[in-house]
Amino acid sequence: MERIVVLAGGIGGARFLRGLKSAVPDADVTVIGNTGDDIHLFGLKVCPDLDTVMYTLGGGIHEEQGWGRADETFVVKEELAAYGVGPEWFGLGDRDFATHIVRTQMMSAGYPLSAVTEALCSRWQPGVRLLPMTDDRVETHVLIDTADLDDSAQDDGKDSRKAVHFQEYWVRLRASVDAHAVVPVGAESAKPAPGVLDAIAEADVVLFPPSNPVVSVGTILAVPGMREAIADAGVPVVGLSPIVGDAPVSGMADKVLSAVGVEATAAAVAQHYGSGLLDGWLVDTVDADSTQAVEDAGIRCRAVPLMMTDTEATATMAREALALAEEVRA
Amino acid sequence: MERIVVLAGGIGGARFLRGLKSAVPDADVTVIGNTGDDIHLFGLKVCPDLDTVMYTLGGGIHEEQGWGRADETFVVKEELAAYGVGPEWFGLGDRDFATHIVRTQMMSAGYPLSAVTEALCSRWQPGVRLLPMTDDRVETHVLIDTADLDDSAQDDGKDSRKAVHFQEYWVRLRASVDAHAVVPVGAESAKPAPGVLDAIAEADVVLFPPSNPVVSVGTILAVPGMREAIADAGVPVVGLSPIVGDAPVSGMADKVLSAVGVEATAAAVAQHYGSGLLDGWLVDTVDADSTQAVEDAGIRCRAVPLMMTDTEATATMAREALALAEEVRA
Repeated sequence: MERIVVLAGGIGGARFLRGLKSAVPDADVTVIGNTGDDIHLFGLKVCPDLDTVMYTLGGGIHEEQGWGRADETFVVKEELAAYGVGPEWFGLGDRDFATHIVRTQMMSAGYPLSAVTEALCSRWQPGVRLLPMTDDRVETHVLIDTADLDDSAQDDGKDSRKAVHFQEYWVRLRASVDAHAVVPVGAESAKPAPGVLDAIAEADVVLFPPSNPVVSVGTILAVPGMREAIADAGVPVVGLSPIVGDAPVSGMADKVLSAVGVEATAAAVAQHYGSGLLDGWLVDTVDADSTQAVEDAGIRCRAVPLMMTDTEATATMAREALALAEEVRA
Repeated sequence: MERIVVLAGGIGGARFLRGLKSAVPDADVTVIGNTGDDIHLFGLKVCPDLDTVMYTLGGGIHEEQGWGRADETFVVKEELAAYGVGPEWFGLGDRDFATHIVRTQMMSAGYPLSAVTEALCSRWQPGVRLLPMTDDRVETHVLIDTADLDDSAQDDGKDSRKAVHFQEYWVRLRASVDAHAVVPVGAESAKPAPGVLDAIAEADVVLFPPSNPVVSVGTILAVPGMREAIADAGVPVVGLSPIVGDAPVSGMADKVLSAVGVEATAAAVAQHYGSGLLDGWLVDTVDADSTQAVEDAGIRCRAVPLMMTDTEATATMAREALALAEEVRA
């Protein structure tokens, strides 16, 4: 049985995982999930990326939206607003609230996030081992111009830039303003969660799904020891481009790529990861002319369809990634 | 403007207060609410009696039920059950959950319960000043026979009795088993909440609504300084019997009365409070023959209709109580 480790963000990672499970149902898949986008809302610990993976693979996801629960209601949120308690820009539904209530209660009782995630997964049975990248608190902050904030924390002439939580940048501001820097606060002192380094060491292949290379995969790689463990594993590391035709497949990855000085192209993202980390890279067929640049950077590259239109198309992408890994190995 | 202090439990206290507000809309009413039935559920701080008063006077109560919110839904509870997280016997609805989420978040931020209650009331505008009896943690426990518990915490031959949280006794067991003792755990070291002693000292009259004399009014009186403050105020203290015709008007007050060795009669409850505390007592017309026994105990007593069938009937009860207070004063 093949042991596959996947570094996953939210929607893109979760959908890729569903295709991977369909392609190799008997594989032993460990998902290392990004927790940099975790946020405390209403005193509750919310883990958007972990939950998106859990709900997607467990059959509870809101399919069209890609995040949150299907058949969701918003009574609690409406009542919180009646109390004047926000933020209102984060769409927590009633079903979703229950997850955060259980998580917060367990964490208050002293359980680490990894144990809590395992407990939540005992309901959802995602068919993969879902591990948070770390049990320590890491929060991705985005540096923006204060003039771009329309609230009371306005530019007072002193500070022209302000760091906001990634969710505020992504959800509230819809990444519509310039990001000058992306900082995974706390990452430098975070330790990989129990099981993470062992899973990497025992992996037969490591995959980077078409997740955001900065705020998803990049945050996971920012945990000390993660990058080294992947390099030391000595197994093929293959990624799939989240950029197709010079635009993100979904989301607003180009916004945060510019913050780290990376062009929003399939080739530039591969070069950003670098040949020290990445052995193989899949670009979409529309980007076939960029394969040479990636190969020149020492990364084996193939052009295949990369649109996750349905589970079968995504399963084909997963098969291509595993085939490229075999090619690397051979 | 008359200053009235009311010691209130849940449903009975809240309904009486609605009648009182209707009878004397311009009165300055301070409610000292029982917090002995507070409970932590799912990591959230739940204050059933305070919320029943707040929802009832604020127009959000489930009228037929007497507690909880109108137009309530139960999505969060259903999801918690799907996670295997209980207890399932406590009916927290989605709208209600929002209240507990706001309260818990504020308390985690360091605000005392009295400040949190004031903040919640700024939404509900109950038309009274609602104060918790104390900001300290008090939890009413009920001593029952372990054989009466049908869960895993069964009689192992060692301990034949066990203390359970009042809500477990009242809601889960529906007070259907013998209560051997009622203990307000923590009361002995609790301090009256800010404003409580001042409100009593400045009151023109103190009323005991037809609330449970043991687990509602009794718990409030168990806070050190409370009983003395009422006695020292030197103003009429008038109560309304929660027992009509030798049975509680609503609820299961007789169950906990026996635990403190008090007969479930209107006269016995008055004698339990005692003439050191109580100046006047209203019994229902069906208990008219017991007025003499109450008077003999040094407490002025009148028999009037005491069924809170609607707001007008309840307002009449409130007027009778205030009239008796004037009679005491004169």
